[in-house]
Amino acid sequence: MKPYKDMTVEELNEELRQLKTEYKKIQALGMQLNMTRGIPCQEQLDLSMAMMDVLDSSSDLTCEDGTDCRNYGQLTGIEEARELLGDMMENNPKDIVIYGNSSLNVMFDTISRAWTHGIMGNTPWCRLPEVKFLCPVPGYDRHFAITEYFGIKMIPVLMTPTGPDMDTVERLVREDETIKGIWCVPKYSNPQGISYSDETVRRFARLEPAAPDFRIFWDNAYGMHHLYDHQQDYLIEILAECKRAGNPDMVYKFSSTSKITFPGSGIAALATSPNNMVDFIEDLRRQTLGHDKVNQLRHVRFFGNIHGMVEHMRKHADIIRPKFEAAENIMEKNLAGLEIGTWTKPLGGYFIMFDSLPGCAKDIVARAKKAGVVMTPAGSTWPYHNDPNDSNIRIAPTYPNLTDLSTAMELFTLCVRISSAKKILAEKQ
Amino acid sequence: MKPYKDMTVEELNEELRQLKTEYKKIQALGMQLNMTRGIPCQEQLDLSMAMMDVLDSSSDLTCEDGTDCRNYGQLTGIEEARELLGDMMENNPKDIVIYGNSSLNVMFDTISRAWTHGIMGNTPWCRLPEVKFLCPVPGYDRHFAITEYFGIKMIPVLMTPTGPDMDTVERLVREDETIKGIWCVPKYSNPQGISYSDETVRRFARLEPAAPDFRIFWDNAYGMHHLYDHQQDYLIEILAECKRAGNPDMVYKFSSTSKITFPGSGIAALATSPNNMVDFIEDLRRQTLGHDKVNQLRHVRFFGNIHGMVEHMRKHADIIRPKFEAAENIMEKNLAGLEIGTWTKPLGGYFIMFDSLPGCAKDIVARAKKAGVVMTPAGSTWPYHNDPNDSNIRIAPTYPNLTDLSTAMELFTLCVRISSAKKILAEKQ
Repeated sequence: MKPYKDMTVEELNEELRQLKTEYKKIQALGMQLNMTRGIPCQEQLDLSMAMMDVLDSSSDLTCEDGTDCRNYGQLTGIEEARELLGDMMENNPKDIVIYGNSSLNVMFDTISRAWTHGIMGNTPWCRLPEVKFLCPVPGYDRHFAITEYFGIKMIPVLMTPTGPDMDTVERLVREDETIKGIWCVPKYSNPQGISYSDETVRRFARLEPAAPDFRIFWDNAYGMHHLYDHQQDYLIEILAECKRAGNPDMVYKFSSTSKITFPGSGIAALATSPNNMVDFIEDLRRQTLGHDKVNQLRHVRFFGNIHGMVEHMRKHADIIRPKFEAAENIMEKNLAGLEIGTWTKPLGGYFIMFDSLPGCAKDIVARAKKAGVVMTPAGSTWPYHNDPNDSNIRIAPTYPNLTDLSTAMELFTLCVRISSAKKILAEKQ
Repeated sequence: MKPYKDMTVEELNEELRQLKTEYKKIQALGMQLNMTRGIPCQEQLDLSMAMMDVLDSSSDLTCEDGTDCRNYGQLTGIEEARELLGDMMENNPKDIVIYGNSSLNVMFDTISRAWTHGIMGNTPWCRLPEVKFLCPVPGYDRHFAITEYFGIKMIPVLMTPTGPDMDTVERLVREDETIKGIWCVPKYSNPQGISYSDETVRRFARLEPAAPDFRIFWDNAYGMHHLYDHQQDYLIEILAECKRAGNPDMVYKFSSTSKITFPGSGIAALATSPNNMVDFIEDLRRQTLGHDKVNQLRHVRFFGNIHGMVEHMRKHADIIRPKFEAAENIMEKNLAGLEIGTWTKPLGGYFIMFDSLPGCAKDIVARAKKAGVVMTPAGSTWPYHNDPNDSNIRIAPTYPNLTDLSTAMELFTLCVRISSAKKILAEKQ
C-alpha cells in the first residue's frame, strides 16, 4: 500500500470507511484484555513451580557457613544467594546486597535515604532547594512515579538507538549541580527494548557531574531476558567500567528475579561500591534484621548455579518469543509502507515501543480501549505523563495468549490506521 | 541469707572470696553463649517446618478471589492473609495491610514517610526545626535506633507495672507540639514482659496531643506469645478504643509472625484507620508492586485459621516456658533476700527484666561476658544507650538450651552478687 500522506482525500475516506467496518467487527467480539503492564503469563509462572518443591519439611535450611535461614540475621543476604545473583549481575558477591521481593522497593528506599540522610556525607536532599533527575525518554513510568513523589524535578533526555543522548547527559550533569541522578534501564530498555552501546556505557562511566552525590540508577531489570539463543544484546558491566574510569562510587545497580521466577516472590539485589555499601548498610541495619533467607535459599537450590538460570530463561524465551514475533508480524503486515508509525524489534525484555504520527497516541489507545483492549496509557513513558508529541505507545506482549494477542494487535494496528487517516485527512481538508 | 547491706565488711569480704571461686569455676567451663537478642531456639523453628510442605509444585496458588499469588499485584496483601492477621491482631481485615517479612521495616518506613511527606497533610517532619518522640523506658533498643537515626529527640518516660507513666505522657503530648509519637510494646513488653492495664490503654486512646500528626506507634509484637494456657495477660484493642474515644487516626499498630513461624520468613502487618491507610498506600504504591503473596498463602494454608495459630503458639510456650521458669528459679535461689536486685515474672513475650543496684549493670554484664556469656549490653534499654542509673539489664532466655541457660543464669546471678558486694563494700569502707 502507498503512504497515507500520498493518498487523495477520496482514497483516505474510502480507507477510513473500510477500517471502521473492521473495527466494528473486532469490537463486536467483546474482548476484555489488559495489556497495560509487562507481566509474565501463566505458562511462564508455571516454569518455576518446581521451585515449590526444593524445600520441604525434611530439608536442611542451613547455609554452607552454618547460618540457619529460618532465624534472624544475615543483613546482606546469604552467601550462596550473593554468589548466584553476583553471577547473574556480573558483579563480585561482596558488592551485592540481597533484599526482599522487589527491586523497585530498593530504588524507592534509595531515593528516600538520599532524601532523609544524604549520600556519603553530602547534604540530605530534603535540605536542598531543588533536586533534579535526568529521565531518558521514553522511559519507565514507575521510575518517574518515585521521583515525582519526592518532588524531584524530572528533566527528559531523549533516547537514541544506542541509549540516552549522551552529549546532553554529559553537558547537563557537568553544568548543573542540582542534578543528582539519572534513571537507566540499560539492557532491553523499557519501553524500547534496546540496549546501551559500548560507547554509551563508557561515556556513562566517565561522566563528570557537578554534584558529588550524583548517582546513576542502573536498573538492569532484563539482563537475563533474551528472546533468542544467539542473537543477544551485550552490555558492558557498569560497576567495573566506573571503577576503571576512576568513578567507582557513581552507580547503584539494581536487579531482581521477579521476571525469572515469580514476580511477587522473587529476590531483589543491589550491586554497588564498598563506599556506597556503607551508606546502604547504615540504613538497612536500622530498617530490618534481614530479608527472607528461606526464599533466598529456595532460589539458590532451585537454580543450582547461573547455568541453571540461563537454561531456565531459555524456557521463558520459548514462551514469549512467538508473541513478540506475532506482534511484529502483524504490525509489518498492516502498517508497513503506510508511513504512519515506527516500532522497535527487540531481542529481549518485555516491551515493544511504537511511535505514531504526532498527536495520535492518546487517540489510538482510547480507540483500542473502546474495543476492549487496555494498553499502557499514552504519555506514561514520559515524566508527568506528558509526552509532548503524543506519539509514544508501549506494547506489552507477554501476558495475553497468542490468540488474544494477535486479535489485540490486529485491533491496535487498525486503531493506528484510523487515527492516522483521520489526522492526515484533517490536514488535507 | 541476709541482705548485703546488713553484712559487715568481714562478712562481705568472705562472701566475695567464695563468689570469686565460684566465678572462676564457671569461667573455666569456657562457655560461649550469645544471649543478646530475643530470638527463637531451634526447637521453636522446627515447629514450623511443616509450613515448608503446604505448598508444592502441584498446589494451586490461586486465592479465593482469583488472584494468582505468583504474579504481581495485591498491594495490601491477599484477602485470606488479611483475614488471618486480622484475627491475630483483633482488627477488621479491611484495616490491615500485609507487608514483607519485617514489622521493624514497616515502622522504619513509617517514620521515613512522615519525615519525607508528612502525616495526613501535615508538614513533613524534615521541614520542622525539631521533632521529638516519647520513649517509655526501659524499652526496645531497635525502636530507639530508628528515631535516633532520623535525629528525632527521644524523651524517656518511666514505665510502671501498668505501662508508661500516663500522667507524664498526657502532660507532655498536651504541652509540646513537637512531640510526634511514642513507641509502645503494649503486651508482654520488651524488656519488662508486662502488659498495659485497661486504664493505661484507655488513657492512651484519650490523649489530647498538641500535634495533629502525633501518632502512637503500637508495636504489638507479642500479642500471641503467652507462656501459660490460662494465666494470660489481656490487652484492650487500641484501634477500637481510639475509635470509641473519637481519636480514630491516632494509632499505627504493627505486628508480625516473626516469632510465630520463622523470624526471617514470616509476614508483617499494619493495622490502622482508613484515613491513615490512605497515607500508607500513597507511599506503598510507589514503593512496590506488592509483597510476597506466595509466602502469605503459605502462612494461611499452614495455620488454616486463628485457632490453628493459637494451638501452634501453645507448642512454642511448651518449649520456652521451662526456660523462663528456670531463669526465675535460679534468680530466686541465688538472689532472694539479698536486696541487690529485682526482676519481672512475665506471663509471655521474650524477656525478663532485671534491675540491679544503681551503678552495677555495666559491671555485671562485663563480668558475664568475661566468663563467656554475652548479654544485651547494659544501657540498651534506654535511648542513646544511656541508662542514668546503670541498673537495667534485659534477659533473653529463649535461645539457649535449658542446660546452657541454667549455667548462664548461675553465672549471671553470681556476677550480680560480686558486683553488688563490691559496691556495698566500697560504700562501707
